[in-house]
Amino acid sequence: MLNWLLLFVPLTLALEYLAAQQHLLIFISAAVAIIPLAGWLGQATEQLAERSGEGVGGLLNATFGNATELIIAIAALRAGLHDVVKASLAGSIIGNILLVLGAAMLCGGLKFKEQHFNSNGARAEATLLTLAAIALVLPAVYMQRALEIPELLGKVQHLSNAISIVLLLAYALFLYYSLVTHKALFAGMREDISAASDLWPMGKALGVLAAATCFIAWISEILVGAIEPSAKAFGLSNMFIGVFVVAILGNAAEHTTAITAALKNRMDLALSISIDSSIQVALFVAPVLVLGSLFIGPQPMDLAFPAGLTLTVLLSVIVTGQVAGDGRSDWLKGVQLLAAYLVFGLAFFFIPATAAP
Amino acid sequence: MLNWLLLFVPLTLALEYLAAQQHLLIFISAAVAIIPLAGWLGQATEQLAERSGEGVGGLLNATFGNATELIIAIAALRAGLHDVVKASLAGSIIGNILLVLGAAMLCGGLKFKEQHFNSNGARAEATLLTLAAIALVLPAVYMQRALEIPELLGKVQHLSNAISIVLLLAYALFLYYSLVTHKALFAGMREDISAASDLWPMGKALGVLAAATCFIAWISEILVGAIEPSAKAFGLSNMFIGVFVVAILGNAAEHTTAITAALKNRMDLALSISIDSSIQVALFVAPVLVLGSLFIGPQPMDLAFPAGLTLTVLLSVIVTGQVAGDGRSDWLKGVQLLAAYLVFGLAFFFIPATAAP
Amino acid sequence: MLNWLLLFVPLTLALEYLAAQQHLLIFISAAVAIIPLAGWLGQATEQLAERSGEGVGGLLNATFGNATELIIAIAALRAGLHDVVKASLAGSIIGNILLVLGAAMLCGGLKFKEQHFNSNGARAEATLLTLAAIALVLPAVYMQRALEIPELLGKVQHLSNAISIVLLLAYALFLYYSLVTHKALFAGMREDISAASDLWPMGKALGVLAAATCFIAWISEILVGAIEPSAKAFGLSNMFIGVFVVAILGNAAEHTTAITAALKNRMDLALSISIDSSIQVALFVAPVLVLGSLFIGPQPMDLAFPAGLTLTVLLSVIVTGQVAGDGRSDWLKGVQLLAAYLVFGLAFFFIPATAAP
Repeated sequence: MLNWLLLFVPLTLALEYLAAQQHLLIFISAAVAIIPLAGWLGQATEQLAERSGEGVGGLLNATFGNATELIIAIAALRAGLHDVVKASLAGSIIGNILLVLGAAMLCGGLKFKEQHFNSNGARAEATLLTLAAIALVLPAVYMQRALEIPELLGKVQHLSNAISIVLLLAYALFLYYSLVTHKALFAGMREDISAASDLWPMGKALGVLAAATCFIAWISEILVGAIEPSAKAFGLSNMFIGVFVVAILGNAAEHTTAITAALKNRMDLALSISIDSSIQVALFVAPVLVLGSLFIGPQPMDLAFPAGLTLTVLLSVIVTGQVAGDGRSDWLKGVQLLAAYLVFGLAFFFIPATAAP
Repeated sequence: MLNWLLLFVPLTLALEYLAAQQHLLIFISAAVAIIPLAGWLGQATEQLAERSGEGVGGLLNATFGNATELIIAIAALRAGLHDVVKASLAGSIIGNILLVLGAAMLCGGLKFKEQHFNSNGARAEATLLTLAAIALVLPAVYMQRALEIPELLGKVQHLSNAISIVLLLAYALFLYYSLVTHKALFAGMREDISAASDLWPMGKALGVLAAATCFIAWISEILVGAIEPSAKAFGLSNMFIGVFVVAILGNAAEHTTAITAALKNRMDLALSISIDSSIQVALFVAPVLVLGSLFIGPQPMDLAFPAGLTLTVLLSVIVTGQVAGDGRSDWLKGVQLLAAYLVFGLAFFFIPATAAP
Repeated sequence: MLNWLLLFVPLTLALEYLAAQQHLLIFISAAVAIIPLAGWLGQATEQLAERSGEGVGGLLNATFGNATELIIAIAALRAGLHDVVKASLAGSIIGNILLVLGAAMLCGGLKFKEQHFNSNGARAEATLLTLAAIALVLPAVYMQRALEIPELLGKVQHLSNAISIVLLLAYALFLYYSLVTHKALFAGMREDISAASDLWPMGKALGVLAAATCFIAWISEILVGAIEPSAKAFGLSNMFIGVFVVAILGNAAEHTTAITAALKNRMDLALSISIDSSIQVALFVAPVLVLGSLFIGPQPMDLAFPAGLTLTVLLSVIVTGQVAGDGRSDWLKGVQLLAAYLVFGLAFFFIPATAAP
């Protein structure tokens, strides 16, 4: 469906090597090119998952679910753009809730007057998300002060590493929980939402997976290289690009699936997609990037989010708790989630400098 | 019932023109005079609403529901008392929840051992309130930093204007939702709580509306003129007056109705009154004042709330979510809401200087 | 069961008077000695409560429920260690929720696949806790700024005293509510969880109560005296000791009982124990210490909690609301509560200096 967007892949490569000064064009073209690639990566993952049996399949889905986001973030890490990476982590958590869920509730609400979902399941997932987000961003409040005291600077990195290990352990247990001990809980939610497609041959699945990953990595490098000059051209901050552009690209797949689910009146699934994706960012993507930054990139990355982002993430997850506890959605709730996202975007747009730690 | 308080209207005018130095007396007299005027304004609005059919009637009620508050705030705006206006906006949201709802739950709880309400409806409204409040006050966290950097000062005003437009659009959609697409949801809640009074002739309704509005505007100018000297006489800050006196006056009507509803064991209505009123302040009164300040008053007003107010508003709306999700109330819950309000008032009373941005 | 730990009582006394320089040994020995003493104090209180009839018995249980914590805190107050006292108050509220409840849910979840509880009752208690915690720590946001302005310093103490009086009044009403007007609500929850033991003679109960109190007070003085040198030896801050060691010791009894309850599949009771204990710290222990500090100790103590602790307490109580509203628990929820506690502990461990106001 989005396959014609693949034309942007060669276009991006051509621009990069023939018109390297056209940063803005390159940036836009690369951003568009990533969308269909991410779609193919997702499809290949699902095909492999279906062949692998429940356990391994679930693991594959969970691990590659945020692969696009992870690849872009690694490219940014290698370029030393820590502010972009942090902003995209926070932006991804916020975006999944306010933008993805908001759009799903709005689209669903335009078709159905009122939609219902199992508030118990949604509430349980929202609680997990709150705890994950607290563990991720609350220490930033303590780090903020440490950043002002030179001799404590090193401690911030140690603390970030230690937290990352705790988060990864929590994620491993979360996978064990959802794939082994309590998999029944998630049965209905993980059902295939797309029209059942044919099963691919193993070779095709692996080939598509490899090709999509390679291209995403290549285009990501180009995208990241164009971030700073493009941001400057627009008068935007790196962080704005991180919170909005990178986070939205990384979650394009969730976006499509959640809206499709809402239009099929399956709000349980729409909620689960957006909440689960946020949990994975907090418990898996973020700590992998912090620990990975010890080995790649010019210098290690810490978890010292600026105050505004910290508070926004915390409020977003609290709102999720309220929305999920509610058991019903309609278009107004979608509008309000989107309005909150828009206001948040405006704050970043107008006073980007204040977003720095 | 409160009609004898109308005697304070001529008293205020007399004091203002005969004893202009008696600021404190004038302030108290003006404050008391506004209470019965607001009552008449409310009654006239209801009469007009009843004659106008559901749609327009609902619109009238929604728009004029916070008319008193709006008129006082405009007077303060014209006098350049931005801190009073902001404080009254925050104080109104907080007061509706902690004071109005607390008093209703306490009074209702003294009469009935336990009161129940439809937690689903209340929870949906609480979610709307949370989203509205977040959109209103969260950007203040970003603005705080910008205020310290001279070249960003202008951006704060631009951001405030942009947010105001988003909030007004959200409010328009909220009205469309509650008056058109989902009016059934609110059917039970908007029922007349007062003993059904006779229908007034159209002329009387319009006349009372006009007279009450005129007098409220007049007395408001006098009240606002007396705020600064009275605050000084008491050793209070302007903001204390804004958060407590102005916000309480502006919500006197909600106060009475919510308590009456609670005493009739209609907690659904009591919750709805206080939550709806807060939603209107966040989505309608606040943006109208910001955009209005571009045309009236010595200089435009922004939305940079000080940190203490921001956190208090956010916690108040989160508490509303908990209280509403609960489905039951008793006197202790009322006491605790009032205690939180009292503690908040004490903080303002003792260290007013810290409330400034 | 823990009686052999009583051997640490004479050991502590011996160390204190024979090897006063072994601060670390003394600290550890004193900490261990307090655990069985607190157990005996609890048992004696229960025996007295059982003999005294419902009303007075409930009062005894409520008042002495946090006796160990109160005694240790008074010793710290006399030593002028205000930071330790404040940290132990915040740490106690946080620990009851994240550590005690987390451990109970994990242990219960390892035995039962899924545990259920009455979410209405739990939610009502969580709401009370949120309101109590807000009243306790929110004013700290206002105080922080006042602490930077010398002439406002005195106001912070006045404000703290005033808040303490409000909190104590709220606590008195809470007792009246739970022991008189709404005692039926708590009937199931306060049932004896331990195997019904024989009733002691009155003399024995009073004797054990007196002896345990005396010894706890004595050992507490020794413990507190060893805090500063031990903290220095470990490179820890006083606050770390306060938040973790003192708060955990003070809640050892709740800890055991909550886990026992969870293992008996009585999650209602486990939730009630941890939430009630936090409510008592906020509404009773904290204000008693502030007002008591006017009479004992080198100087009065205020309620100016540092920003990190304030936010952590607020988020913890909000999480409680979500967890309680949920109605179900399993081992993953326990793991996540414990992970959040661990991350919070790591933040304190690595950058203790930032925890100071």
